[in-house]
Amino acid sequence: MTQWVYSFGATQCDGDASQRNLLGGKGANLAEMSSIGLPVPPGFTITTELCTYYYDNDHSYPDILTQQIQSALAQIETETGRQFGSADNPLLLSVRSGARASMPGMMDTVLNLGLTDESCDGLATQSGDARFAYDSYRRFIQMYGDVVLEVDHGLFEDTLDDMKMDKDVVSDTDLTADDLKALVASFKQIVLDETGEPFPQDPNTQLWGAISAVFASWMNQRAITYRRLNDIPASWGTAVNVQAMVFGNMGDDCATGVAFTRNPATGENQFYGEYLINAQGEDVVAGIRTPLPLTLEAKQQGGHDALSLEEAMPEVFAQLDDVRHRLERHYGDMQDLEFTVQQNKLYMLQTRSGKRTAEAALNIAVQMAEEKLITESEALDRIAPESLDQLLHPTLDPDATRELIARGLPASPGAASGMIVLTADEAEKRANQGDKVILVRVETSPEDIHGMHAAAGILTARGGMTSHAAVVARGMGRPCVSGASDVRIDFDAGIVYLGEQQLQAGDVITIDGSAGEVYSGQVAMVQPNLSGAFETVMGWADKYRRMAVRANAETPNDARVAREFGAKGIGLCRTEHMFFDQDRIVAMRQMIMAADEAGRRAALELLLPMQRQDFIELFSIMSGLPVTIRLLDPPLHEFLPHTDSELEEVAEAIGVAVSTARQRKLKLEESNPMLGHRGCRLAVSYPEICEMQARAIFEAASEVARQDSAPIPEIMIPLAATSRELEICKAIIDRVAAEVAEATSITLEYMVGTMVELPRAALCADALAEHAAFFSFGTNDLTQTTLGISRDDAGSFMHDYQAQEIYPIDPFVSIDEEGVGSLMRIGTDKGRQSRPDIKLGICGEHGGDPKSVNFCETLGLDYVSCSPFRVPVARLAAAQASIRAKAKS
Amino acid sequence: MTQWVYSFGATQCDGDASQRNLLGGKGANLAEMSSIGLPVPPGFTITTELCTYYYDNDHSYPDILTQQIQSALAQIETETGRQFGSADNPLLLSVRSGARASMPGMMDTVLNLGLTDESCDGLATQSGDARFAYDSYRRFIQMYGDVVLEVDHGLFEDTLDDMKMDKDVVSDTDLTADDLKALVASFKQIVLDETGEPFPQDPNTQLWGAISAVFASWMNQRAITYRRLNDIPASWGTAVNVQAMVFGNMGDDCATGVAFTRNPATGENQFYGEYLINAQGEDVVAGIRTPLPLTLEAKQQGGHDALSLEEAMPEVFAQLDDVRHRLERHYGDMQDLEFTVQQNKLYMLQTRSGKRTAEAALNIAVQMAEEKLITESEALDRIAPESLDQLLHPTLDPDATRELIARGLPASPGAASGMIVLTADEAEKRANQGDKVILVRVETSPEDIHGMHAAAGILTARGGMTSHAAVVARGMGRPCVSGASDVRIDFDAGIVYLGEQQLQAGDVITIDGSAGEVYSGQVAMVQPNLSGAFETVMGWADKYRRMAVRANAETPNDARVAREFGAKGIGLCRTEHMFFDQDRIVAMRQMIMAADEAGRRAALELLLPMQRQDFIELFSIMSGLPVTIRLLDPPLHEFLPHTDSELEEVAEAIGVAVSTARQRKLKLEESNPMLGHRGCRLAVSYPEICEMQARAIFEAASEVARQDSAPIPEIMIPLAATSRELEICKAIIDRVAAEVAEATSITLEYMVGTMVELPRAALCADALAEHAAFFSFGTNDLTQTTLGISRDDAGSFMHDYQAQEIYPIDPFVSIDEEGVGSLMRIGTDKGRQSRPDIKLGICGEHGGDPKSVNFCETLGLDYVSCSPFRVPVARLAAAQASIRAKAKS
Repeated sequence: MTQWVYSFGATQCDGDASQRNLLGGKGANLAEMSSIGLPVPPGFTITTELCTYYYDNDHSYPDILTQQIQSALAQIETETGRQFGSADNPLLLSVRSGARASMPGMMDTVLNLGLTDESCDGLATQSGDARFAYDSYRRFIQMYGDVVLEVDHGLFEDTLDDMKMDKDVVSDTDLTADDLKALVASFKQIVLDETGEPFPQDPNTQLWGAISAVFASWMNQRAITYRRLNDIPASWGTAVNVQAMVFGNMGDDCATGVAFTRNPATGENQFYGEYLINAQGEDVVAGIRTPLPLTLEAKQQGGHDALSLEEAMPEVFAQLDDVRHRLERHYGDMQDLEFTVQQNKLYMLQTRSGKRTAEAALNIAVQMAEEKLITESEALDRIAPESLDQLLHPTLDPDATRELIARGLPASPGAASGMIVLTADEAEKRANQGDKVILVRVETSPEDIHGMHAAAGILTARGGMTSHAAVVARGMGRPCVSGASDVRIDFDAGIVYLGEQQLQAGDVITIDGSAGEVYSGQVAMVQPNLSGAFETVMGWADKYRRMAVRANAETPNDARVAREFGAKGIGLCRTEHMFFDQDRIVAMRQMIMAADEAGRRAALELLLPMQRQDFIELFSIMSGLPVTIRLLDPPLHEFLPHTDSELEEVAEAIGVAVSTARQRKLKLEESNPMLGHRGCRLAVSYPEICEMQARAIFEAASEVARQDSAPIPEIMIPLAATSRELEICKAIIDRVAAEVAEATSITLEYMVGTMVELPRAALCADALAEHAAFFSFGTNDLTQTTLGISRDDAGSFMHDYQAQEIYPIDPFVSIDEEGVGSLMRIGTDKGRQSRPDIKLGICGEHGGDPKSVNFCETLGLDYVSCSPFRVPVARLAAAQASIRAKAKS
Repeated sequence: MTQWVYSFGATQCDGDASQRNLLGGKGANLAEMSSIGLPVPPGFTITTELCTYYYDNDHSYPDILTQQIQSALAQIETETGRQFGSADNPLLLSVRSGARASMPGMMDTVLNLGLTDESCDGLATQSGDARFAYDSYRRFIQMYGDVVLEVDHGLFEDTLDDMKMDKDVVSDTDLTADDLKALVASFKQIVLDETGEPFPQDPNTQLWGAISAVFASWMNQRAITYRRLNDIPASWGTAVNVQAMVFGNMGDDCATGVAFTRNPATGENQFYGEYLINAQGEDVVAGIRTPLPLTLEAKQQGGHDALSLEEAMPEVFAQLDDVRHRLERHYGDMQDLEFTVQQNKLYMLQTRSGKRTAEAALNIAVQMAEEKLITESEALDRIAPESLDQLLHPTLDPDATRELIARGLPASPGAASGMIVLTADEAEKRANQGDKVILVRVETSPEDIHGMHAAAGILTARGGMTSHAAVVARGMGRPCVSGASDVRIDFDAGIVYLGEQQLQAGDVITIDGSAGEVYSGQVAMVQPNLSGAFETVMGWADKYRRMAVRANAETPNDARVAREFGAKGIGLCRTEHMFFDQDRIVAMRQMIMAADEAGRRAALELLLPMQRQDFIELFSIMSGLPVTIRLLDPPLHEFLPHTDSELEEVAEAIGVAVSTARQRKLKLEESNPMLGHRGCRLAVSYPEICEMQARAIFEAASEVARQDSAPIPEIMIPLAATSRELEICKAIIDRVAAEVAEATSITLEYMVGTMVELPRAALCADALAEHAAFFSFGTNDLTQTTLGISRDDAGSFMHDYQAQEIYPIDPFVSIDEEGVGSLMRIGTDKGRQSRPDIKLGICGEHGGDPKSVNFCETLGLDYVSCSPFRVPVARLAAAQASIRAKAKS
């Protein structure tokens, strides 16, 4: 018999933290906390397997489920001493989602479940607080009506607003018990009017309705979007947690709050959180009332007037602080807690690994390792490589002049400039057009996620440090200023009032998410100073990683940045990028459009000294490190003149009529340039191009070798599909090498290898390896050809493809392991077959993607190469991959 | 010790016919003829292995070679009773190439080798014919000077012409011994002037020079071109045959000729050939003197005056006729012979399997099988499947009016119309532009091959039935009229005089290669009547083949032709081809450019009845046979409006402004449409398209099933890379099938499968096979993606790629077995892994290519599908592949 339901509580606890896949994160941790004796209200978790069952069986449940739930419910009744559905002593329940990975706010929740007309009276009697009872009931009807019965929640809100206006009060809390009783009646009427059925008075009906609503919310649009953005498969499903309600809103001896065991923004080892007296949990996270600091220290730092929890409820605070330390020791990681205090008694409602900024992740990992809470390997594993990207983003230049126009909370670090947009859709649209935008909202909600993702930064008028905007922005690495109360928005007019200023949508502002400040216009920025923890972690990463990390770079600037970020050489220098400068493009066009070899040679003569100078600079910067130079790769038509004046210019350079030049241009245009006359095909057709580039490389290397240690050029032949192509190109390169060696009397070491970027190259890698001393997997093109998808054209369908989980992860971001990956495996195996010591690397965009780096480790590649800013990411990812590989072996 | 030299002759014979790879075709057959006692002048063959050695070792020879050659030479001296280099009794030699495969006229030959000033006098004395001796010597100097010493042959020819003018004679034969002696002196002076060295007087120097020249000629440009056109690897190398000279030009009791043991044009069992009295071999094939028929019958048929060999030399003829029968029995195949009669004695100089027309090949194979000379399997193996193509070419409509403007010889059957071009380069250029051309030449030479290949037909003013033009044209399946002596060409003026007519280059003519006739303008043509032998062979092929042969067809006409040619169903119906009709393209454009699903559905409603009607016709024609229908595949942009008026038309149809329509068009354009939004990606984005097509298929099938046996539609999903795409599309198809079944009360059998045309599909075939009941390898696209070559753009480099042997055979013609083939193997293996009974086929162009069909047999595919006209080719190729596979197992 399948166990669909797992109880937790003081008397019985079926699950533990290891069962995250089955019980979801929340359920597993509630069980774990119960089992180590923390004060958790009793409850039970319905497993993620049931979610799968539910979707596989047309939204139905196995028969046995009713019995399992009834039995688990009975246990809660025993432990709490209350009865579900009782009129006198009702047990109220919360019903919440809880997936394997945290998806905050994405799915539905129902609180105060079990209230009926009858039990509401019982609750009033029992609690001695009729106002509390009716407030709970109207909240329940509102939530249940919205979530389960799909009644427009605006109807409830409007009725509440009308009531407040009627009674001339500002806050909900000013409404009396009678007001709330009347509101309950109105809400019930809304339900009847909208659904044609009275609000359900059977608690079991309520419970099943809520459970189904939670499962159904797994497939709502915002959950689907969130999963896509966070690479969470739909197949995981969500669990449902049903738990006895505790109330933070029964009076001033009650409270509710959220906390992090360390500062999630900086990583400092300080208790960090917010709470509200006499409130329910969602009041804190929803940002409706501005919450208060947890500790005295934070209160003093923030300059608040209200009492901290430490002052208001010192005993409860001490107990909570003890829980904080126990949980950190138990989990060996910084935790994100939810708690409620009901009549001075502390209840823990949730613990989970806390989201944190990259800076905090680094600091926490390093500190915990130093505190011996975790090992160095574990510390490395705690840091999401992707998150390092944040640390490398610019901050405001301290010397830049700036005009402060508003202040808010420093919700997510980093700075960003962009034009104001007022809706998530607009943000996405503008960003797709290439604009940098700042999304400005009163507060954000899960519906805004795509816009937050598209924005360079986020600014909200309401909400605290743990508001939706803050949590999501930190997770995404977007700078965010929240709770900037000076900000007002007139949507219809498209105007944003920032303090004294009045700005239009489209105006540029700058936000500093580390300081919580908003500036007018664009403010100059500087590179961040990387903290000591960053260096420590990078040091550990280098100690544990097996693969080398190189950078893709061709400009001296990129090469320098790459070296600073710890690149051990250049894995891809794309020589064509060197030819787009205004003074070179004409010579390049002259070469392409020449009528014959003599014409091409004349143009190549002009290009040779420029190209040689490029390599001299590059070799000097990378002195002592390998530099992989890819020969000219792109379809020639990329260099073709676009405008008439460009055409005239090139016609004059080659000395032909404009009409002749235009005809040559037409002849060079291709219908599928990606699969056209490019890569080593150019060298086969026009050996003189390969010859010029080889000459530039060897002459530059000789030049550098005169003054410095000789570089080892690794010359890479692009787009080879056959061994014969390599044979032909290598013969040219070897000949030029010998010629230069003779002329300069300097004999250089060098390697000739190839990109493996076509399926045929991987399939015939044994033959290719006979002429190639190294392979570098060009996974961009390999993905294009293996999947038959042009990256430039994928936009029209890739969205549908991800939504329908055909490619759950964009294959241009993470290597498609089944398809492209299996070709890479064939390529490495066959390459080593005929050349056991062949050097193997990767130089596609995937070289900086942690999941792909891990895959490269499983193939045993020698190095990964990525863009300079991704080098730290790749170093850490490579270390994690090594650690994982060792753990497996 | 390696044996580099193999002797043949009456007294010692080292080789035999089985050693073709080592000795070349000519050498192996000379040895074979010697060993069965035929009169072959003694000689020796230097092996093809030495050719390889020569190129691998920088054009040098192993030391032992000298000794082996001297010893073989000694044996010739013994057998002939002459001495090489002797002044009194000189042995003269011929030195000829001889590769594994016949490459007529491609490589160099030197005759009369061994003549020096001294031995020429000896030869004059010994033969009693000074004229003959000096003529031989001047021919030798001329040939050796051209071939070995690389002296421009025009210099010799000009001197000869001057001499004739001087002496006021027309023919070489009118020159006296003294004239020729003077000519020898002039020729020697030319050599001295041009090379700075006197003509070599040492016979051994001459011999080594000639041997090296033959080896060197293996790599001349025309040999390379010929090999590329005929798929002959450079690695095979050529042998060199050194043989005692015999002379057909020593007087009127001498002759030389070529013969086929059966008629190579028709296959009739009649001795067929030509000869010349008092001539050397090249006089016959060069077409300088028009040769005479061999037999009395041929003389009478041709209405010639001169004596046939049968009349002129009855004894020699009887002996030759006997040789003819012995060789046919011995080789079991029609032979192409060369012979020389020296002073009434017959010598055989060559035998080889004779080139023949497709019609002749069929007739000979069938007759020989009926004569029990060979088995049915052997008969099938004798016919080149490619050659059947010729039989299916049109001939002139007998009822068409026509204007005969010239007559020539019926050198290669079939008829063709095209514009006159006068050079091979022009032929190639025009053909590349899509024009049909007739190449008109005085006579053709190996330099013209590329132009002959490009031409629809060939017309020459000179040369017989065995001239270069005739042999090559028959081999290529091009219609050819040779020796049309009324044809005169003024190159400079670009004018062709045909009898009375004067035509310009560019004017259209029609040639009938079966009748030897030339017509003005374009003459209507008809399909050929396939002979009984064709039906017999096709019947045998069907008996021996394992794979089924289907056709790629979508129009009723193509489907009917396919059935007539024996297709067992349709393997590929490309539904997009159905939408280009004028009345449909507007609805198609309306669908593509609609703003939303409703707009698309409106347009699809218009297309549904048309599409249904298409399928009704197709299913009716293919009643009882499977029909594979591929869902819409091409990038939508192929259907986009081109002109402004088309744009206006579609804008009106969808009811939007032209500017809006133009914007949508821009949005739909792609940079690499081959890898863009096409194939099943359309069905994923726009499921309603898939739905409409499925509905049309099932409604049509139900309609046909009411009156006929129900067709089994095999619905093929294009361009799938993942199993999920198939899952999504199959769900739509299955749903529509159920809906149509319910509406019509007819339940149809059908299959859903996929094209395997992306590398990922092959690599993940196990997953795909879970949703696909069949795979059809789409080798066109699979080649494009595996090799990364766009077929549309390959033109700019494929020529270089073939010339440099990167792809020795165009991979779009024959499957690239190492690359694409290995993916096909992975695909078949993995497909069968998860679905052992999966149906496997191929529907790319390769399905009609014999080499590729053979490869498909090795994979065990169930069927091949090709264009209707290739069906007979594929049936025969499939039979040969089956026979080969059985022979191996």
